[in-house]
Amino acid sequence: MTTRKDSRGLDELRTITITPNWQEAGEGSCLVEFGRTRVLCTASFTEGVPRWKMGSGTGWVTAEYAMLPRATDSRSPRESVKGKIGGRTHEISRLIGRSLRAVVDLSLLGENSIVLDCDVLQADGGTRTASITGAYVALALAVEWALTNGILTTSPLTDSVAAVSVGIVDGVPMLDLPYEEDVRAETDMNVVITGSGSFVEIQGTAEDGTFNRDELNAMLDLALAGTAELTERQREALA
Amino acid sequence: MTTRKDSRGLDELRTITITPNWQEAGEGSCLVEFGRTRVLCTASFTEGVPRWKMGSGTGWVTAEYAMLPRATDSRSPRESVKGKIGGRTHEISRLIGRSLRAVVDLSLLGENSIVLDCDVLQADGGTRTASITGAYVALALAVEWALTNGILTTSPLTDSVAAVSVGIVDGVPMLDLPYEEDVRAETDMNVVITGSGSFVEIQGTAEDGTFNRDELNAMLDLALAGTAELTERQREALA
Amino acid sequence: MTTRKDSRGLDELRTITITPNWQEAGEGSCLVEFGRTRVLCTASFTEGVPRWKMGSGTGWVTAEYAMLPRATDSRSPRESVKGKIGGRTHEISRLIGRSLRAVVDLSLLGENSIVLDCDVLQADGGTRTASITGAYVALALAVEWALTNGILTTSPLTDSVAAVSVGIVDGVPMLDLPYEEDVRAETDMNVVITGSGSFVEIQGTAEDGTFNRDELNAMLDLALAGTAELTERQREALA
Amino acid sequence: MTTRKDSRGLDELRTITITPNWQEAGEGSCLVEFGRTRVLCTASFTEGVPRWKMGSGTGWVTAEYAMLPRATDSRSPRESVKGKIGGRTHEISRLIGRSLRAVVDLSLLGENSIVLDCDVLQADGGTRTASITGAYVALALAVEWALTNGILTTSPLTDSVAAVSVGIVDGVPMLDLPYEEDVRAETDMNVVITGSGSFVEIQGTAEDGTFNRDELNAMLDLALAGTAELTERQREALA
Amino acid sequence: MTTRKDSRGLDELRTITITPNWQEAGEGSCLVEFGRTRVLCTASFTEGVPRWKMGSGTGWVTAEYAMLPRATDSRSPRESVKGKIGGRTHEISRLIGRSLRAVVDLSLLGENSIVLDCDVLQADGGTRTASITGAYVALALAVEWALTNGILTTSPLTDSVAAVSVGIVDGVPMLDLPYEEDVRAETDMNVVITGSGSFVEIQGTAEDGTFNRDELNAMLDLALAGTAELTERQREALA
Amino acid sequence: MTTRKDSRGLDELRTITITPNWQEAGEGSCLVEFGRTRVLCTASFTEGVPRWKMGSGTGWVTAEYAMLPRATDSRSPRESVKGKIGGRTHEISRLIGRSLRAVVDLSLLGENSIVLDCDVLQADGGTRTASITGAYVALALAVEWALTNGILTTSPLTDSVAAVSVGIVDGVPMLDLPYEEDVRAETDMNVVITGSGSFVEIQGTAEDGTFNRDELNAMLDLALAGTAELTERQREALA
Repeated sequence: MTTRKDSRGLDELRTITITPNWQEAGEGSCLVEFGRTRVLCTASFTEGVPRWKMGSGTGWVTAEYAMLPRATDSRSPRESVKGKIGGRTHEISRLIGRSLRAVVDLSLLGENSIVLDCDVLQADGGTRTASITGAYVALALAVEWALTNGILTTSPLTDSVAAVSVGIVDGVPMLDLPYEEDVRAETDMNVVITGSGSFVEIQGTAEDGTFNRDELNAMLDLALAGTAELTERQREALA
Repeated sequence: MTTRKDSRGLDELRTITITPNWQEAGEGSCLVEFGRTRVLCTASFTEGVPRWKMGSGTGWVTAEYAMLPRATDSRSPRESVKGKIGGRTHEISRLIGRSLRAVVDLSLLGENSIVLDCDVLQADGGTRTASITGAYVALALAVEWALTNGILTTSPLTDSVAAVSVGIVDGVPMLDLPYEEDVRAETDMNVVITGSGSFVEIQGTAEDGTFNRDELNAMLDLALAGTAELTERQREALA
Repeated sequence: MTTRKDSRGLDELRTITITPNWQEAGEGSCLVEFGRTRVLCTASFTEGVPRWKMGSGTGWVTAEYAMLPRATDSRSPRESVKGKIGGRTHEISRLIGRSLRAVVDLSLLGENSIVLDCDVLQADGGTRTASITGAYVALALAVEWALTNGILTTSPLTDSVAAVSVGIVDGVPMLDLPYEEDVRAETDMNVVITGSGSFVEIQGTAEDGTFNRDELNAMLDLALAGTAELTERQREALA
Repeated sequence: MTTRKDSRGLDELRTITITPNWQEAGEGSCLVEFGRTRVLCTASFTEGVPRWKMGSGTGWVTAEYAMLPRATDSRSPRESVKGKIGGRTHEISRLIGRSLRAVVDLSLLGENSIVLDCDVLQADGGTRTASITGAYVALALAVEWALTNGILTTSPLTDSVAAVSVGIVDGVPMLDLPYEEDVRAETDMNVVITGSGSFVEIQGTAEDGTFNRDELNAMLDLALAGTAELTERQREALA
Repeated sequence: MTTRKDSRGLDELRTITITPNWQEAGEGSCLVEFGRTRVLCTASFTEGVPRWKMGSGTGWVTAEYAMLPRATDSRSPRESVKGKIGGRTHEISRLIGRSLRAVVDLSLLGENSIVLDCDVLQADGGTRTASITGAYVALALAVEWALTNGILTTSPLTDSVAAVSVGIVDGVPMLDLPYEEDVRAETDMNVVITGSGSFVEIQGTAEDGTFNRDELNAMLDLALAGTAELTERQREALA
Repeated sequence: MTTRKDSRGLDELRTITITPNWQEAGEGSCLVEFGRTRVLCTASFTEGVPRWKMGSGTGWVTAEYAMLPRATDSRSPRESVKGKIGGRTHEISRLIGRSLRAVVDLSLLGENSIVLDCDVLQADGGTRTASITGAYVALALAVEWALTNGILTTSPLTDSVAAVSVGIVDGVPMLDLPYEEDVRAETDMNVVITGSGSFVEIQGTAEDGTFNRDELNAMLDLALAGTAELTERQREALA
């Protein structure tokens, strides 16, 4: 039987902690932790939309992901100092934005924007999935704030959304990979799933070799179970 | 029965043309066309590897994707003029690089690098999948060049690789979407598959709503058949 | 008698090919070839003018020149990746823009803009002169499009314009230098001339030593004859 | 008698909390809080020095300050997205670096570098003084780590260092200004003082009007008392 | 007794020269010289204010400091070529702007802006203090120009402002440090003082070790006397 | 008869002043004035060559041109603030460098570099020609310095070089255009000529309409006479 370093079962999530309103600023925020991965998610609700949406009567939800320079074992140079944003940062920011928009009815948002900042304070694998999971909580709190303050009259949220990583490590499919497993994985997949169990995004990459359809199905099963549990944790945090 | 604007079948590719050695410069090149989408793929074989690989004894394969400003219906500003590369460009460049590395044994490449430039001359949907498909041909020609010139003694290619888009448009799964279908698609998926039929990368995104497991399976079936045909076209071009 | 590597006469152009409408996007386009030099020229006609021209009632014509990374024998890094445009690129873009504006009555253009994108797919000397020659064809096609579509009522074109390089190689003046001659040239001159034979721009540079007035006159004679021939090719392409 | 909004005395600090080792990564770290201002300070100890110090046999200590986009009441664009670092960020990073170097004997550090990252998670005035105060703790922990691991044999620390803001608000000198007082201050002064009570840096600015010598002296008295207390809190955190 | 290399007394300024209207362009300008330090200060008076001040009815005064690449003993790369402005440049530009605003009643300026460009042609220590001193003269000339031309009806200047450096070199406090003393100084302080003798800004930094209160007081005494003399020179230049 | 605003003859230069060694820093420098156009030219002689010339045994001469923000009637934003160098700046820098290299035997320079900084303090037309003319003087002084200090044993200068603008204004060819004539010119030409009267560079542009061969010849005659006089002034300055 495969044993994981942290003695978790193959289908078990790491310890998940979601602390809502960790930040005072922001219309909604939470500190989300997937094991040692720790992301501060803050929602900024602002009137108005980007130029290309003006006059549309509908709103916009977007996200910016970033990592503190020493979130990781060795220090990375700041993207602000390098003067440009790397491909990985762009990719993840876009993924978070798309994932959240999948559960927002932008027409109910009016010409308002919500920006989700996901700043990784500590990174141990799964920063993008933790970001999506936490960003949803920050978003829901910001929507609540807007409803309470009469800025919105109907919630534009159509569902909740959460994400988890799955992968094949040493030939074995497993759930929620920490960094140590992630670097060893033959295949790595991030799956974004709504509270009602539909797919929003599947990003599977063979890092070493390729993967077949059975492996794909095993990973999807793990992801569906994992996000169901994350959905539960989101509900508790928002209760 | 669903009819597509160009009267193709749901499981039919657009007209695929691969013109090898379209470019004189480059150790390998081709002009690949998926219908009206037209990408110039050029492989540059150079001695040496990026700094972080020096001394490893193994090589590197990477890609850069770009689009001419008027490849599309309306002109986009050049990324060189804007002074930075957008997130989409980064994302696709990285995807192409990963896809090709999946079929290269870097240790057989020695400390050499191959850069694949994929420049979209005309865009009508599927530019990233055409790029991967064409880049493989340019890569294979560059490897051939290196073998012929005694720079490599064994081919580092372990398989071929091709990619195709699939999607759900008006509720119907279909293969190889042109721009007109792509913007209407509820779900859009790019699938990268080896010549022997294994998955290298799956990127599925619900652009509008979500998708379920049956829809996922239908799309994967289309992608497997489509890439099998693309593999055939690559073989012909390289013959 | 001096023989050129490609056995052309001293006053002979390379094979000139102009393929109009090579590109579907763009209000006008052509693929222009001066021997192995191959440039894709595309005209984008858009309503409106840059901020500094607003309210002037007159239009604007500008150009952007760029080279694919592997248009040349060895790969150059992309300017978009470097995050800035080099001096040479700037210089040539400005030259093309000025050359075209010399044959456009901007007041007849109304507050419309035409951007000429000249992307060098393959480079073998004379990329800037091929760009000007091809850009004129793309421009003329875009003007035709605007007339046909009732956007313009009178053609703003006052003449045609073409350009050619001349130089002194091994002491001998010659026309239309490929790369191999260009690097050996003592003097290199690019001359932009209208269809009616007037000068628009002369840029002569002593690359090695200096040049005297007789040499200058010999080069100008070659350029006048060469551009007269290019004017003919433009007419054929537009017929 | 002047009463402050938070009912503190004029010479009283806000609630100061220093949580050492808040971050797992980093050779030393702390979360420092001055009231609602919250800064994550992390020290990265690395072998080697910047190029201009190579071969000097001495080390280097530097700092990078940054603020999360929604640390404040309204969201600021990220400097990484803007592609450049603002003047204020530069200024504060340099101040923190200089302040720490004042208590480090760089020759005892060998050719090693310590980078202090000060990331403001929540901002309510005094972010630069909190950063210096917290960065010292992170630095001291990193030095301890290096001593424990035999990388250093003698501590290069010659003293401790802390900083506090003072200002004149409504004509009254007061200590440790939160944002609400800071914006109203006629004069704002940041003072960096060693554990033994000597000045490292004085930066006093008349934001509205000017200030005289008596006012200067009153502010310096407050700063000396305030930093003495901060020194005590640093000692407790490091105990 | 301490002797300075240039045989000045400890409390003596270098030769100060202020040449008003050195530049023809600009609504006011001067070339200011502190010994061999030579700064060209030019005031540009323009209608309108930055976006964030629009509609406020008040004006804005700002400054940009820069150094020619070979103002110093060895050539520094241009910030325009590097593509970004360094921290030191930012810091000094901000300091100059703040110093001038301290003597301008922005509400009397109307919605107009004055930009002070301080370009260091030759640098020998004290470039920021020379810049402030010269910028005030350029500013006063620009205000005079605006009054003469009926653009302003009341002078917005509430006082004059000048700046000087002081420092402790080899344990001895001294005034107006040239580069040679500046690099050796244990403490370096820049003091900005109004014509009526009030402080606008104090920036004191222990470059090597720390400084105590007596040393601080000695430096402030020198600065007050030095700026009083600079105020006199400004009056003469403006007479 | 045509009269020029400043009552000069058509073939007359403006008042030319060359002040050698205006700058203390720099191995050679001069302040060159063509009427009100004023450029500070400074030569920096440094050991070593750019990477691409290493090991060649030959040297390099290059130039950087820039304009102070308020050299002109209205203030332009700094290129350092914009974060990039404009096309015009690039173009002129390259022209100056080429012009100087035409009179330098790089093999006699050894692996040394000379950078010519041409900073326009005041601009009234002809800044690029004044820059070339002044840069030659700074270069000659730097070569003298290197000979005096035993860094060079033979002068690498093979000739002198100067430049002047000529143009056709209101149909009349004239020499050395100030800004007022330059903007009105139908044709504008910059000519770089050696002390012995050979051409180094000709850049002629029809700004409005085109020009014919007679006009070209008239302009060249003026330029040859004008640069002959400038050569004389250079000799006097270097005497």
